[in-house]
Amino acid sequence: MIVLTKKEMQTVFTMEEAIQADKEALRLFSQGKSTVPLRTNIDVPEHGGQSLYMPAYVAGNNQALGVKIVSIYPGNIEKNLPSVPATMVLLNAETGIVEAMMDGTYLTQLRTGAVQGAATDILARKDAKIAALIGTGGQAISQLEAMLTVRSLDEVRIVDIDKERCEQFVKEMSEQFAHFNTKLIAVDNSEEAVKGADIITSVTTSRRATFSGEHVKNGAHVNGVGAYTPEMHELPSEIIVRADKVIFDTMEGVLAEAGDIITPLKEGLVERSHYQGDLGEVMLGKILGRENEEDITVFKTVGTAVLDVVTAEKILVKAKKLGVGTQIAL
Amino acid sequence: MIVLTKKEMQTVFTMEEAIQADKEALRLFSQGKSTVPLRTNIDVPEHGGQSLYMPAYVAGNNQALGVKIVSIYPGNIEKNLPSVPATMVLLNAETGIVEAMMDGTYLTQLRTGAVQGAATDILARKDAKIAALIGTGGQAISQLEAMLTVRSLDEVRIVDIDKERCEQFVKEMSEQFAHFNTKLIAVDNSEEAVKGADIITSVTTSRRATFSGEHVKNGAHVNGVGAYTPEMHELPSEIIVRADKVIFDTMEGVLAEAGDIITPLKEGLVERSHYQGDLGEVMLGKILGRENEEDITVFKTVGTAVLDVVTAEKILVKAKKLGVGTQIAL
Repeated sequence: MIVLTKKEMQTVFTMEEAIQADKEALRLFSQGKSTVPLRTNIDVPEHGGQSLYMPAYVAGNNQALGVKIVSIYPGNIEKNLPSVPATMVLLNAETGIVEAMMDGTYLTQLRTGAVQGAATDILARKDAKIAALIGTGGQAISQLEAMLTVRSLDEVRIVDIDKERCEQFVKEMSEQFAHFNTKLIAVDNSEEAVKGADIITSVTTSRRATFSGEHVKNGAHVNGVGAYTPEMHELPSEIIVRADKVIFDTMEGVLAEAGDIITPLKEGLVERSHYQGDLGEVMLGKILGRENEEDITVFKTVGTAVLDVVTAEKILVKAKKLGVGTQIAL
Repeated sequence: MIVLTKKEMQTVFTMEEAIQADKEALRLFSQGKSTVPLRTNIDVPEHGGQSLYMPAYVAGNNQALGVKIVSIYPGNIEKNLPSVPATMVLLNAETGIVEAMMDGTYLTQLRTGAVQGAATDILARKDAKIAALIGTGGQAISQLEAMLTVRSLDEVRIVDIDKERCEQFVKEMSEQFAHFNTKLIAVDNSEEAVKGADIITSVTTSRRATFSGEHVKNGAHVNGVGAYTPEMHELPSEIIVRADKVIFDTMEGVLAEAGDIITPLKEGLVERSHYQGDLGEVMLGKILGRENEEDITVFKTVGTAVLDVVTAEKILVKAKKLGVGTQIAL
């Protein structure tokens, strides 16, 4: 068995590769080549925690089989431990034998950034130069990197309700991502961030819109990455209504979980047919993505275990090839 | 994270301890302190395999949380690999963080032997001297050890449809278990094994009775360990009918899976009330076990994830105390 830490995963696998992996994962999903049982939730009331088990199998050239174990323990913060620790266990699909274990928290960050990168690459204008990032929490780094990876951007305007955290984030990211030659700017409010932006990515758990739809220009591409419960609602309904295309990682998951997509439908602001379908179907040519330079496109993701197993399998293949990771007899 | 191999598990944890662990596990189960979601099955048709995920949580003094991953790949035999590879992943119930990984195949053998040991200890006559073991496959070693552990036996008669395998087994076990000072004897047929035996353990996947009920003496305790599908039927229906007590690891599991218990009920040979309940309830004094020296007691187990997590947690605690296992940063 091979154990891979975050650092080792970072060493062997780039955001560019993760974006390719997520594209392949969603294509396979839309071809019906994946098996994703309902996740299993176990409550641990004694410690105010919950433990989730998300197994999946994806057929294809590189078959991927495994389970992501994610725990939600809000009380961990007081113990200086991650509040959502995660571990990915990967099996060899040919033998059913457990083959690898890796940092599931980093895997989640990576594949969640990458799926936005995949959508932005496919849906945003090719000549996009200005991006906005709303939210600088734990998922923000990979969201930023994904946008920087798929387009040659002049600037990314970054905003957070916590101004100090935002400035710290911009400072650190300006160093970490200096090689992209993109100006990262901390701005005071979402209006400054969004006005004139070609790409807008919101990654918060907000219960109300993190920006105003009226500030979004025609031709923009909007990513909703954060809101993952019916109560959360970070994308303004106005932009859902105005959007020419609304595309998902998996419509099934989004319509079950994402308030920003469920609510406009419930309130009768849009018809069900306003929601085109999945990014995998765009790649397969079954539905249309952006049709012209004026289209507003929206991508909403809540994640799927398909992204986890396919990305993890590709990381493992690469790690084995490069001899990275700790080998353990079991 | 700690990784424990079979050898390390054997070093730190005895059958005696495993029997105590299983007793505690079943007590907690009968007290309603466990959460055992339905296991998740993923088919991998490309390789004729199946991958099962069995998570569970047990509250109590030593809370136990984890998932056993078991794959069923009959084709592995041709590749010289185990056909039912298994891995146990244990989480810290206080933090939700993955804490250990251990050999799930050995864990299954150990806890399956131990649950029979628990039942035999609780249900068999205290003065039991003669035991019979039917079946010498992969689960037989721990079944034998469990019987030897809970009673001072003069002899164990061992039988298998494969006479050669049986003799080899007896030879090896006579060395391995020499310290019990019990004579292990390979016999030609189940009649020789069962006649006059105080304890009878059948551990096969047979679709018909592995011995005849008429050869079972009054006062005997019978364990049905092998049959785990509705089609399998290793215990003779006659002995189910004659039994004064029929006790299970979990009635829920047995009535869903075990042919030797389901069929007599279906055929009207016994009433539902003939099946008393679970071993945990016997320990809690809610139902009666053996009442006199003439009672025939039957214990049937199909296993439960509760046994896995509780036993694994106790192994981990012991391994940490003794500094055994490989520490891995993740």
